[in-house]
Amino acid sequence: MNEPLKTGSTIGILGGGQLGRMLAVAAARLGLKTHIFEPGSEPPASHTAHRLTTAAYSDTEALIAFARSVDVVTYEFENIPTEALDTIEAITPIRPGREALRVSQDRLIEKAYLEGLGLQVAPFAPVHDAESLQKAVDQIGTPSILKTCRFGYDGKGQAKLNTPEDQSAALAAMADQPAVLEGFVTFSREVSVIAARSVNGDVACFDPGENIHKDGILHTTTVPASLSAAQRTDAVLMAAKILNALDYVGVLGVELFVTPQGLIVNEIAPRVHNSGHWTQNGCAIDQFEQHIRAIAGWPLGDGTRHSDVIMENLIGNDMDRVAEIARESGAALHLYGKADVKPGRKMGHVNRIAS
Amino acid sequence: MNEPLKTGSTIGILGGGQLGRMLAVAAARLGLKTHIFEPGSEPPASHTAHRLTTAAYSDTEALIAFARSVDVVTYEFENIPTEALDTIEAITPIRPGREALRVSQDRLIEKAYLEGLGLQVAPFAPVHDAESLQKAVDQIGTPSILKTCRFGYDGKGQAKLNTPEDQSAALAAMADQPAVLEGFVTFSREVSVIAARSVNGDVACFDPGENIHKDGILHTTTVPASLSAAQRTDAVLMAAKILNALDYVGVLGVELFVTPQGLIVNEIAPRVHNSGHWTQNGCAIDQFEQHIRAIAGWPLGDGTRHSDVIMENLIGNDMDRVAEIARESGAALHLYGKADVKPGRKMGHVNRIAS
Repeated sequence: MNEPLKTGSTIGILGGGQLGRMLAVAAARLGLKTHIFEPGSEPPASHTAHRLTTAAYSDTEALIAFARSVDVVTYEFENIPTEALDTIEAITPIRPGREALRVSQDRLIEKAYLEGLGLQVAPFAPVHDAESLQKAVDQIGTPSILKTCRFGYDGKGQAKLNTPEDQSAALAAMADQPAVLEGFVTFSREVSVIAARSVNGDVACFDPGENIHKDGILHTTTVPASLSAAQRTDAVLMAAKILNALDYVGVLGVELFVTPQGLIVNEIAPRVHNSGHWTQNGCAIDQFEQHIRAIAGWPLGDGTRHSDVIMENLIGNDMDRVAEIARESGAALHLYGKADVKPGRKMGHVNRIAS
Repeated sequence: MNEPLKTGSTIGILGGGQLGRMLAVAAARLGLKTHIFEPGSEPPASHTAHRLTTAAYSDTEALIAFARSVDVVTYEFENIPTEALDTIEAITPIRPGREALRVSQDRLIEKAYLEGLGLQVAPFAPVHDAESLQKAVDQIGTPSILKTCRFGYDGKGQAKLNTPEDQSAALAAMADQPAVLEGFVTFSREVSVIAARSVNGDVACFDPGENIHKDGILHTTTVPASLSAAQRTDAVLMAAKILNALDYVGVLGVELFVTPQGLIVNEIAPRVHNSGHWTQNGCAIDQFEQHIRAIAGWPLGDGTRHSDVIMENLIGNDMDRVAEIARESGAALHLYGKADVKPGRKMGHVNRIAS
């Protein structure tokens, strides 16, 4: 599939959360339909998509029918079982490609890959038992963070080591999963670059945003970030280097720490990213449309920032403030239509435009 | 229903065209679901809505089931059969209300109503046969335009009289439908105001846009319009007067002629309007969300214009230019996902943001 998708074509999306929901809206804007594949019931993305398949990722028959019904497949999360990807890829192209998934599904592989590209990452060492943890602590020291190699997100699957004595508790928290010990990086700020690459290799980056986390979950992203011109250029070049190395197609989120020693890559996400939600109200073309354009074989759009924006995530009971936020001037609400409010659950976000 | 609709509530939309499609997207952004009622098959709005009922407006059973499944009903076109509205309204509120539909469904009633509010309209006279047409021509003169009272749009149901001799041909074009003869207004430009009124009577207007038509169909809308400060204020006050008089809830499009004698109302549309599509890329809150906010009982949003925009409609074979437009900087495409390209058919639009 090297021709751009035409009006009426269908994009398959693995995962039916808020990212899939906003991808479906962006696809519709370009005259494209979407088909969501999601094991859970009543997924948010189904409200805006043309079609929904409710099935497990182990349901080969459902995967085959899904893959046959669409022109290209993308995803809203990186932890898709390899067997499911194999089944789909035999029928339909997957974008971003398998290499991006292979690298980003495993923290250890990801860090080694980025280091191999000549990019700075936090000091790291593999951990699979008490002995390898002791060796890692000897090498990296404390404070440091032990993280599972796979399936971690929003601060889950992590344990901090303040002193070497915290080793056994931290290891227990990994529940026998392969892990990686990361040195604690002293950074002045965290920024992220939302970058896109098209089928023919064009690269475009949105302005870097500055992130603040609360309880391990992204709280706000502010654009423009407080960066020097040189740091801004570095951030964009680093993102472009990763995109090109992966022969990537789609949008990639790159989280960076700003340190006196330069920019350090924290992690990459092979998909649209929470820290790119500000683009919905800061640019003519947002990250969701940029992703759809890329995977549909279209040219990338113009992601120039026209407004300063502060994005705030609405988590759990933040929903109580929606009526108040709806009255604020310059505030654009984006709610995900989730029926149940739960602590720590991402319910929506608000983009506040500076006048 | 005076409480604001909560996340997970459903808005019923009569009509499944591009306006319904973009209303569905705006509703989703606020965490609301949509249910489309549309007689035609594969309506564009069904790609972005949660639910679709395919049935005729004469299908009372389907209308009742539809009305029961939603929390409020709105519409994307004004020519809904009265009986269908009666059936729905017995079960669920319709917003904007019936008075707005009664007035705007009939050109003669509309003009008389606006005149009654003290607003300027083009000279007009009712026509139902050769005799009344002769009387109307004696009163208004030529050039003038004969228009059917009902069901006219995009230049359809209209016949121009250049001289009094054109009477019989013009009358024949009306096919025995009640009509209205309108005096030809010499105007320097046509502008439109997209205005909104909330359940509690708050009014907000987007910046007036300047419209250019081609072959009777809107071609471009440019913001800001070339208006003096006084004209801008007049335009907004006129729209507010109409909204308040109708005790209106939702978005209303008001088309105005700019003449040496002041602003003359051409027509009103009780819905989101093609000339308001620029708001999608010119404001934090666009006309579609403003309409959904109003009918959902929410406060109106901030429709301040952050960018200059030129909206261009993509009609029929304009779709051949899509690949080229997709590469333009500052161009945001909005395609409607219509499978068949037909001459005169609205296939999409592009908002070009001035840098």
